[in-house]
Amino acid sequence: MNRYRLIVEYFGKDLAGWQIQRNAPSVQQHLEEAIFKFCGQKIVCFSAGRTDAGVHALAQVVHFDIDKEFPPFMVRDALNFYLIGLNIIILEATKVDSDFHARFSAKKRFYKYIIYNRPIASVIEKDLAWHVRNNLDVNKMKEAAKFLIGHHDFTSFRDSQCQGKSPIKTLEQLDIEKIDDKIFIYLSAKSFLHHMVRNIVGSLKLVGTDKWEINQIKTALEARDRKAAGPTAPAHGLYFVKVEY
Amino acid sequence: MNRYRLIVEYFGKDLAGWQIQRNAPSVQQHLEEAIFKFCGQKIVCFSAGRTDAGVHALAQVVHFDIDKEFPPFMVRDALNFYLIGLNIIILEATKVDSDFHARFSAKKRFYKYIIYNRPIASVIEKDLAWHVRNNLDVNKMKEAAKFLIGHHDFTSFRDSQCQGKSPIKTLEQLDIEKIDDKIFIYLSAKSFLHHMVRNIVGSLKLVGTDKWEINQIKTALEARDRKAAGPTAPAHGLYFVKVEY
Repeated sequence: MNRYRLIVEYFGKDLAGWQIQRNAPSVQQHLEEAIFKFCGQKIVCFSAGRTDAGVHALAQVVHFDIDKEFPPFMVRDALNFYLIGLNIIILEATKVDSDFHARFSAKKRFYKYIIYNRPIASVIEKDLAWHVRNNLDVNKMKEAAKFLIGHHDFTSFRDSQCQGKSPIKTLEQLDIEKIDDKIFIYLSAKSFLHHMVRNIVGSLKLVGTDKWEINQIKTALEARDRKAAGPTAPAHGLYFVKVEY
Repeated sequence: MNRYRLIVEYFGKDLAGWQIQRNAPSVQQHLEEAIFKFCGQKIVCFSAGRTDAGVHALAQVVHFDIDKEFPPFMVRDALNFYLIGLNIIILEATKVDSDFHARFSAKKRFYKYIIYNRPIASVIEKDLAWHVRNNLDVNKMKEAAKFLIGHHDFTSFRDSQCQGKSPIKTLEQLDIEKIDDKIFIYLSAKSFLHHMVRNIVGSLKLVGTDKWEINQIKTALEARDRKAAGPTAPAHGLYFVKVEY
């Protein structure tokens, strides 16, 4: 048995997210098919994070096991050949020990969310960032973000379909930076709940547009009720950035 | 007669550049058709810069004259309606005096070129930046760039089809900045020759990959011969940034 770890970039636009779906092309399905075409073996791939439909990844981490051994560069190049045109590319393949698990060995996950904030939409950024028309007050968003950093029950920011065992997570980083008309939101934690990043961004946007007072983020968090927080921000502004092991 | 100035963004991928072509959709053609749909008048649009096929624009400046007067926001919104799906969007429309000319009144033009420099291509950046596989030495590129700044005969960096009267231009800015695996090249001048930015970038890339000594940029410039400079960098890394009047 040979275990390989992949670092994978994907552009979420026409992808149904990480996990295999019945009627839509997912990253997992494309990867498993590429591996089958490469070595003739039907296997299951495991990823560090199960991203939603439309979400991008800069360095998703994946592992899988195959019987035969190949040089890692050959695994990378052959899979990339079978992935051409599918908006998925392998940046790196490495042979790893059998105790490495892309999901369970992960110590920290990093996400980034990009908003572009100007009156008129963009034909260049349209699939790469969330267009918010009304002017966002970034300083207020930064103040509100402070309430979310740390160890909390994030029930209010968790999708009702979330299968996570516990709603309690430690959000280690929630930094917001404005450069020209773009707002970058950086988050990291050991793990996240389903839709947690997008629900946090959707709520911070309400603070930024003055629909919410800064303190309402605290009220929403303490309510432990999904209905108390803001709407889910769109998938196409979200990037799964990297994983630390 | 009413003269309007537009600030226009476009994503160059499926566009044949600014100027009207026989068998390919250009920005000028799409804009003139949108204006015809809006007010029923067949007019000619003038732009600050005639970008090539595939080149993007963040804030191209355009002017045109029509008989009827409309509030500028209505010109912007109506044209944007007729431009849906064409990868062109009007960021701003303003009514201007009849002595304003998008091309001849321009005092300074700004371009940006983006390279991403890593072993494997990107499915996210593929239409937005030039992928250079071999590691680029940015410090050497910065040294070489110094030879090009200032008042020079740029014949070596000018396309053989260039219709400009004189090859002598003053390159006011040629700054290079590396952020993670991206290299940003910023240029400004009163005006540029045809392919000048892309030929400069193509030559700097030869310095960055050590195919050229730093001094060879100087030799190329002094040769006043297109064959002495490097190849033309691809269009999809180039952005027409803005114009100063």
